[in-house]
Amino acid sequence: MSFVLGENRYGKAETHVVRITKDGPSHGIKDLTVSVALSGDMSDVHLTGDNAAVLPTDTQKNTVFAFAQKYGIETSENFAVLLAQHFVDSQPTIHHARVEVAEFGWDRIRPWAGRHGGPPKDHGHSFVRSGRETRTAVVHYDGAATRVVSGLQDLVVMNSTDSEFHGYIKDEYTTLPETRDRILATAVTARWRHGETDNADIRTADFDGSYDVARSAMLEAFAETYSLSLQQTLYAMGTRVLEECPGICEIRFALPNKHHFAVDLSPLGLANPNETFYAADRPYGLIEGTVLREGAPEAGPAWT
Amino acid sequence: MSFVLGENRYGKAETHVVRITKDGPSHGIKDLTVSVALSGDMSDVHLTGDNAAVLPTDTQKNTVFAFAQKYGIETSENFAVLLAQHFVDSQPTIHHARVEVAEFGWDRIRPWAGRHGGPPKDHGHSFVRSGRETRTAVVHYDGAATRVVSGLQDLVVMNSTDSEFHGYIKDEYTTLPETRDRILATAVTARWRHGETDNADIRTADFDGSYDVARSAMLEAFAETYSLSLQQTLYAMGTRVLEECPGICEIRFALPNKHHFAVDLSPLGLANPNETFYAADRPYGLIEGTVLREGAPEAGPAWT
Amino acid sequence: MSFVLGENRYGKAETHVVRITKDGPSHGIKDLTVSVALSGDMSDVHLTGDNAAVLPTDTQKNTVFAFAQKYGIETSENFAVLLAQHFVDSQPTIHHARVEVAEFGWDRIRPWAGRHGGPPKDHGHSFVRSGRETRTAVVHYDGAATRVVSGLQDLVVMNSTDSEFHGYIKDEYTTLPETRDRILATAVTARWRHGETDNADIRTADFDGSYDVARSAMLEAFAETYSLSLQQTLYAMGTRVLEECPGICEIRFALPNKHHFAVDLSPLGLANPNETFYAADRPYGLIEGTVLREGAPEAGPAWT
Amino acid sequence: MSFVLGENRYGKAETHVVRITKDGPSHGIKDLTVSVALSGDMSDVHLTGDNAAVLPTDTQKNTVFAFAQKYGIETSENFAVLLAQHFVDSQPTIHHARVEVAEFGWDRIRPWAGRHGGPPKDHGHSFVRSGRETRTAVVHYDGAATRVVSGLQDLVVMNSTDSEFHGYIKDEYTTLPETRDRILATAVTARWRHGETDNADIRTADFDGSYDVARSAMLEAFAETYSLSLQQTLYAMGTRVLEECPGICEIRFALPNKHHFAVDLSPLGLANPNETFYAADRPYGLIEGTVLREGAPEAGPAWT
Repeated sequence: MSFVLGENRYGKAETHVVRITKDGPSHGIKDLTVSVALSGDMSDVHLTGDNAAVLPTDTQKNTVFAFAQKYGIETSENFAVLLAQHFVDSQPTIHHARVEVAEFGWDRIRPWAGRHGGPPKDHGHSFVRSGRETRTAVVHYDGAATRVVSGLQDLVVMNSTDSEFHGYIKDEYTTLPETRDRILATAVTARWRHGETDNADIRTADFDGSYDVARSAMLEAFAETYSLSLQQTLYAMGTRVLEECPGICEIRFALPNKHHFAVDLSPLGLANPNETFYAADRPYGLIEGTVLREGAPEAGPAWT
Repeated sequence: MSFVLGENRYGKAETHVVRITKDGPSHGIKDLTVSVALSGDMSDVHLTGDNAAVLPTDTQKNTVFAFAQKYGIETSENFAVLLAQHFVDSQPTIHHARVEVAEFGWDRIRPWAGRHGGPPKDHGHSFVRSGRETRTAVVHYDGAATRVVSGLQDLVVMNSTDSEFHGYIKDEYTTLPETRDRILATAVTARWRHGETDNADIRTADFDGSYDVARSAMLEAFAETYSLSLQQTLYAMGTRVLEECPGICEIRFALPNKHHFAVDLSPLGLANPNETFYAADRPYGLIEGTVLREGAPEAGPAWT
Repeated sequence: MSFVLGENRYGKAETHVVRITKDGPSHGIKDLTVSVALSGDMSDVHLTGDNAAVLPTDTQKNTVFAFAQKYGIETSENFAVLLAQHFVDSQPTIHHARVEVAEFGWDRIRPWAGRHGGPPKDHGHSFVRSGRETRTAVVHYDGAATRVVSGLQDLVVMNSTDSEFHGYIKDEYTTLPETRDRILATAVTARWRHGETDNADIRTADFDGSYDVARSAMLEAFAETYSLSLQQTLYAMGTRVLEECPGICEIRFALPNKHHFAVDLSPLGLANPNETFYAADRPYGLIEGTVLREGAPEAGPAWT
Repeated sequence: MSFVLGENRYGKAETHVVRITKDGPSHGIKDLTVSVALSGDMSDVHLTGDNAAVLPTDTQKNTVFAFAQKYGIETSENFAVLLAQHFVDSQPTIHHARVEVAEFGWDRIRPWAGRHGGPPKDHGHSFVRSGRETRTAVVHYDGAATRVVSGLQDLVVMNSTDSEFHGYIKDEYTTLPETRDRILATAVTARWRHGETDNADIRTADFDGSYDVARSAMLEAFAETYSLSLQQTLYAMGTRVLEECPGICEIRFALPNKHHFAVDLSPLGLANPNETFYAADRPYGLIEGTVLREGAPEAGPAWT
């Protein structure tokens, strides 16, 4: 028998770095976890344990902290690009780098205007975690092209009406009644692929701008779509993002259907005109789908 | 040998109810989990399995949904009071009810003003989970007094400066250097006890008002306290809440010290003037403390 | 207005220590998280931030590691006793220590006997996490008495029959049908209080022995009790432990009723003679109860 | 601008089914969550909300329960194959099914032999969750071929010695000292692809047999490999599985390097001869790799 080493990668996962910028008493904050995965000349380390081609994961962690200090963190994407290009360009044995970031938002603590009279004090270095969705980024670099996928997860949304579900297949295992009014709720995981950009320009590209537009486009499309199925809502959200963000060529969604069942109160002698719901945990529907701009460039390893 | 049955209680935990209120196209939402725990004449069920004194947990769940429909949910506290009084007052074998609520906030989805020109459309029945802290309430009722404890958890806050730590005990196991500048971060769990109120009045008391003031007081005290220890900050937060909320007689905190260690970059030839931090998971400091109004009434079972 | 500082404590939580003992090629392992909470002369640190009475939580962490090295870890309880007594006896400002331990079990990796022929090789320093329940311990020491509570959590058990539920209260919100055959499943959290012991003797007392007996007693009582209610099963488990473990004076349980609902397959034309179940997540019943030995000594702070 | 619908699938996720088999007083148990994902003629539902091609996720859930009752659950893989073939073969609009299973193990509660004297009683319908690793299965069926990937996750293993790490790249960000003795610990996630099998035969193939051999092979290879890098251990585990399981053609691993750092006790005047370790949470190394049998058939969609 003979065996071969297949695809492999290694790296340091979830280095949690917080970078404070100080402009007098007013501070800024970036809070993110960074996961690095490198590939290259890794046959020896697997077959014999020879580490001569291995840049230790501990060094990768140090590099994350050092780069945060030296270059700051403009956006998650910019930071991931810097790191990915560094690992491949500085180490001959490393041919491919994947850098993934999860970013957590903070708001400034703002005094309750007018509550104490007089002008509000400035809390320039005090923050509260926003608790909003987590922002994500994945960057691939192979020495030639830099590929960037941005995204978000745990953006939980609900329409309390304007959703129907009917006209579906009925087979011998079907018991679900059709409905003309239901709650539609989901926790959006979305990832969008940016079109091709020069390896240098992409280090300073404005990813905050596209993030804000994409997020708003998804929220608005979700709210404005009278929905006959979650798939229809997914597609509406995807096309809205592509319409409003010309630099994005593809978007992928994973949308759990967070079921809210109207409680049957009739055994208790009560009517329930779609006002009282049981929010179920499991099982849940899971709708996954992709929307592409026609003629989108090849994705390569962008989604891996 | 002889054994005795000691303290006991039982009930349905984490019934997840979502209550929609509909005023034309504009909807309101309350999203909460309700946990009921009842005590009373429960010797027989433990000793022989005789359930004659037992109101099933399934019935408790039904009651939560039915009350949500019949009475609506004004605040978590009002709703918990209604339920607790109901169980004790309607069942002779139930002598004590504890009802605990965790409430999750939702914001309306608001169109990005001005982005599309023209007046914003109204998204009256579309919501996004705020992701802010979880609001909590615990109500006890024993047929005589109703006791209410409100609270919050996972309010994550950070001061990026204005925190020191020095002057502590040094023993043979001490290695920590003193510091004049550090990050102070915590995830606030706070619970505050309301003073005594009439059993009827408390059903409609304004708990939203005190919640908003207490939350703001905590945030402002956290931001405005130049801190020499997390205990000092805790006490400042507690007294601020008691100062601003005359109806609250006691407040308890559990504050994990979420350590952010300045990364030592000197081996890499880099200075780090408290700008780049490693956010640690475990271990963490845990500071717990109570602040009371002088002459606060007895707590009874309020905290159990 | 005047405010007072109430109950408080502080310490380092969840220091995760792994202690290897080496007896030639055969190693032993103890894997636990340790959480320390100290109380004492803590007015100044709360009111003014003066840390003169504060033993830093970082020092507490160092002490955990140093004690693991110096004294080894005989059992979780012995180790917690050593630490608790140390903090109070060595620091005049510390009057009370609470030390909590969670312990994770490991099994030796054993070769599959006979699979390769010949005698099994010895894997003396290779382990696999058992994944069984987590073992717990809480020790209190106040300079006079040492109190020990042992326990376990996440011991998940199921009887697939021999459980009924009927004869309960029916009110206007009751819809549950009575049943003569159901699954009874729970995730046992149990904590048992040991009787009084000399402060020196308790450092070396045999807590492994009582743990093994208590665990077996609970499992056997669960399996052997034909159950008319989960409360009855709880009481049977508690008395069994007290019968078999003379050194234990009190035991407390929290037993979630992990509902397994027989799926109604009749709309699909299928019978379901209690063979196919839907395992629900939430809501769940929660049964809490205590069994004491008659004449058990006062608990003092043991359960806090 | 023009947009196109890309890859998509939908289904019911995490239906939690428990199937009891009853052979007199001795019962058997299968406990698993099943996640179905279907693809096919889904353009209309995305573009217009027309559900004519959609088999509702609720029906999928019903089918899981009905099949559990009708056919029983021989192994997770057999059950997933039945479901996947059913959805595609019975619905013209469904062209591809993916069925994923996670299975949780239970042991019988066994009386402590000899503890009470006399022969042990039989606890034929009493079980305790094993807490061992989770067993996994993913089946793809497209109307032509059935592809099966088995696996496990959270198999946590540790070697307390016989691991070194040195000879790696040093760059300007490297600070890690080389070591000749360290703990090597990981939580194994492994998935192995079975070779091609006839669509009918695979419904009754013996997947328990290969599971047991693969699991033992991994444990033994982990224990018996003197490790110079986690990659080397990964490759040894993979080849061992392929050697011992002729029906498996490929295996993929994700191995987090669960760092256990020897605590530096020298500032406290204590030696630490690799006996006392700090078990870190994050960051962690993550090693991913594949081992294939030479000439393994194409994987097709097996890994998606």
